[in-house]
Amino acid sequence: MTEVVITGIGQTEVGEHWDISLRNLALRAIQAALNDASKGGATPPPRPQALFVGNMFAPNLSNQAHLGALITDYAGLDGIEAVTVEAAGASGGAALRQGYLAVASGMVDVALVLGVEKFTDKVGSEVEEAVSTTSDSDFEAVQGMTTTAQAALLMKRYMHENNVSVNGFAGFALTAHANAVANKNAMFRKAIKTETYAKAEMVSDPLNMFDMAPNADGAAALVLTRRDLLPSDFQRRLVKIAGSASSADTLALHDRKDMLFFDTAQISADKAMRQAGIVLDQISFFEYHDAFSIYAALSVEAVGFAIKGQGWKLAEDGSIGLKGKIPCATMGGMKARGFPGGAAGVYQAVEAVIQLRGQAEANQIPNAKYGLIQSLGGPASTAISHILSILD
Amino acid sequence: MTEVVITGIGQTEVGEHWDISLRNLALRAIQAALNDASKGGATPPPRPQALFVGNMFAPNLSNQAHLGALITDYAGLDGIEAVTVEAAGASGGAALRQGYLAVASGMVDVALVLGVEKFTDKVGSEVEEAVSTTSDSDFEAVQGMTTTAQAALLMKRYMHENNVSVNGFAGFALTAHANAVANKNAMFRKAIKTETYAKAEMVSDPLNMFDMAPNADGAAALVLTRRDLLPSDFQRRLVKIAGSASSADTLALHDRKDMLFFDTAQISADKAMRQAGIVLDQISFFEYHDAFSIYAALSVEAVGFAIKGQGWKLAEDGSIGLKGKIPCATMGGMKARGFPGGAAGVYQAVEAVIQLRGQAEANQIPNAKYGLIQSLGGPASTAISHILSILD
Repeated sequence: MTEVVITGIGQTEVGEHWDISLRNLALRAIQAALNDASKGGATPPPRPQALFVGNMFAPNLSNQAHLGALITDYAGLDGIEAVTVEAAGASGGAALRQGYLAVASGMVDVALVLGVEKFTDKVGSEVEEAVSTTSDSDFEAVQGMTTTAQAALLMKRYMHENNVSVNGFAGFALTAHANAVANKNAMFRKAIKTETYAKAEMVSDPLNMFDMAPNADGAAALVLTRRDLLPSDFQRRLVKIAGSASSADTLALHDRKDMLFFDTAQISADKAMRQAGIVLDQISFFEYHDAFSIYAALSVEAVGFAIKGQGWKLAEDGSIGLKGKIPCATMGGMKARGFPGGAAGVYQAVEAVIQLRGQAEANQIPNAKYGLIQSLGGPASTAISHILSILD
Repeated sequence: MTEVVITGIGQTEVGEHWDISLRNLALRAIQAALNDASKGGATPPPRPQALFVGNMFAPNLSNQAHLGALITDYAGLDGIEAVTVEAAGASGGAALRQGYLAVASGMVDVALVLGVEKFTDKVGSEVEEAVSTTSDSDFEAVQGMTTTAQAALLMKRYMHENNVSVNGFAGFALTAHANAVANKNAMFRKAIKTETYAKAEMVSDPLNMFDMAPNADGAAALVLTRRDLLPSDFQRRLVKIAGSASSADTLALHDRKDMLFFDTAQISADKAMRQAGIVLDQISFFEYHDAFSIYAALSVEAVGFAIKGQGWKLAEDGSIGLKGKIPCATMGGMKARGFPGGAAGVYQAVEAVIQLRGQAEANQIPNAKYGLIQSLGGPASTAISHILSILD
């Protein structure tokens, strides 16, 4: 099998970018990634031949579809192949997967993977309407079910089944906020205490403000190529995509056999690990999709870091901390780095590369060798898992 | 290079499907394609592992994003990989290309490619608003430029530069309508005369009702696999994807060097032909993207069937007819089969397979060996070309 490597990474700050348009936000991340790729050796890197854009809501929130062609134009890449990839909140992971498949196929030598999203130009009701398109429009959204209300129902059921109190979820937010302090691209660089969590404003009972990630603007980009195409003078420590897998499940919760188990998170993580030839214990860190704290709890269970119903304990006992057994959300996760929709999965990859290169500074996981990143659409209606690793 | 073959095709009628939802329309096409694939031999075909959905407007016009997961669920394919691919009007071609890359990569053994679109549940102004998201929102759409007005400007400039009258474009509509008569899935199965065209209602001067394809509902699907994975008892005449390429250009016309030449249509067709190892003369038929008659004229010029400024003559002198030098829109094209948005590119592939299998009956091109299909997004802001051929 062809080895696909990541030669460049780029990201913008995550936050409210009212002063910059969607296309320019995308351009910043692309330029940063191409610039980063050019630092690997003396030979200038070849021009990308394809652009895969992960985006959820530009047609609804920015009146702009057809991002592939638009962004290649603004990035000075006219003529190359370009397409937008959508799988709700997993759009970033989906763009990475399509870029990976294109390079692995041998048809594309150098691919750019971009995630970009602008949430904050619009008011809450418009955003809520857009977000609701990701759930089942005929059976859930039409009944007034928002994704937040859906997560709240999952959380309540989880608390009931497993005899957990709301405060049992605090550790997810505390860890995320602690890890974001040193990440200069994070939206919320402030640690919080258990009391802050306990007193937080209720959003949808039992889910409070700290149980959900903030919708934000941001863009992140990756340069992918095949290992055998690298110039001989490429010197930087290289990260490869050792495993890649994707799986889909029902949108509507009522169609699940067990709504408290994320089947697709398990299926895609298992498949990616098999491809990488590793077992769970070899994973150095896990960038989960903590759009909601209940998603984080169900994700660590699905992947196998905790048994069913016990995932919350990993947050409570410090296991997901930077020095814990399985560090998660190492740069702040969606909760504190922020949730830039279709860019989120690409941010995860950028952060994993930083960890694997050993450039994470205060947030560095010692001897990080294999990173699992997982991008979810809705309540794991889509799950896309990638294993990134240091190239031997 | 791995050979990727099409083992199954499916399509619904193109038209106004007010009685059937988006997901069920998709399901019909998928079931037809899987059923068709099962007729190739005695061994039941393996379950698809991935679904690539081409769609433009479900989030805007059906309040439904995240189609990948939704449709796998309804198709009884839970757990497989699924994603939506968007490149404006080229979304269908883009889905085919992603499916092709996935199978060619060796990561996916059997892929389903689906195009689905529902336009007609909404009124004209809502559709127009959605369609406008495919053009440059900051520089064209915001000025009130619709895609139809944009095509009218192109047509007017073409007429001026090349000294052609409006009636010079009649041949495109006449050919399309003539070819749709025998296609039971076509929207308009009625031949028209030159006088009908000449008297047609003006839409955007000089573009009349017969210069544009009707927005319609429809779904089409393909089953792709690798040749070496076919069961030994597979007997049906097989069609392979001999060439596949995609190219992007500016959305806004004012950024083009020459707005009367479709660069991307040339680039992607040339690349696909090179991959297939053929030259222009070997192409038996051309399914162009005749969303507007001016697109058809510019497409035959870009690909090389006519010199610049002379493409309209191929329509006038009968060269694009079923018995002509280069038959185009052989089943009615977008003009008369109808334009089901993100499904259009997949309909082209289904129709090309029918031609290459020799199943086109009254519309059969004798000895069809290589078919070129081309899916455009906007005025060739994206162009995706595929060469389908009979497997030797």
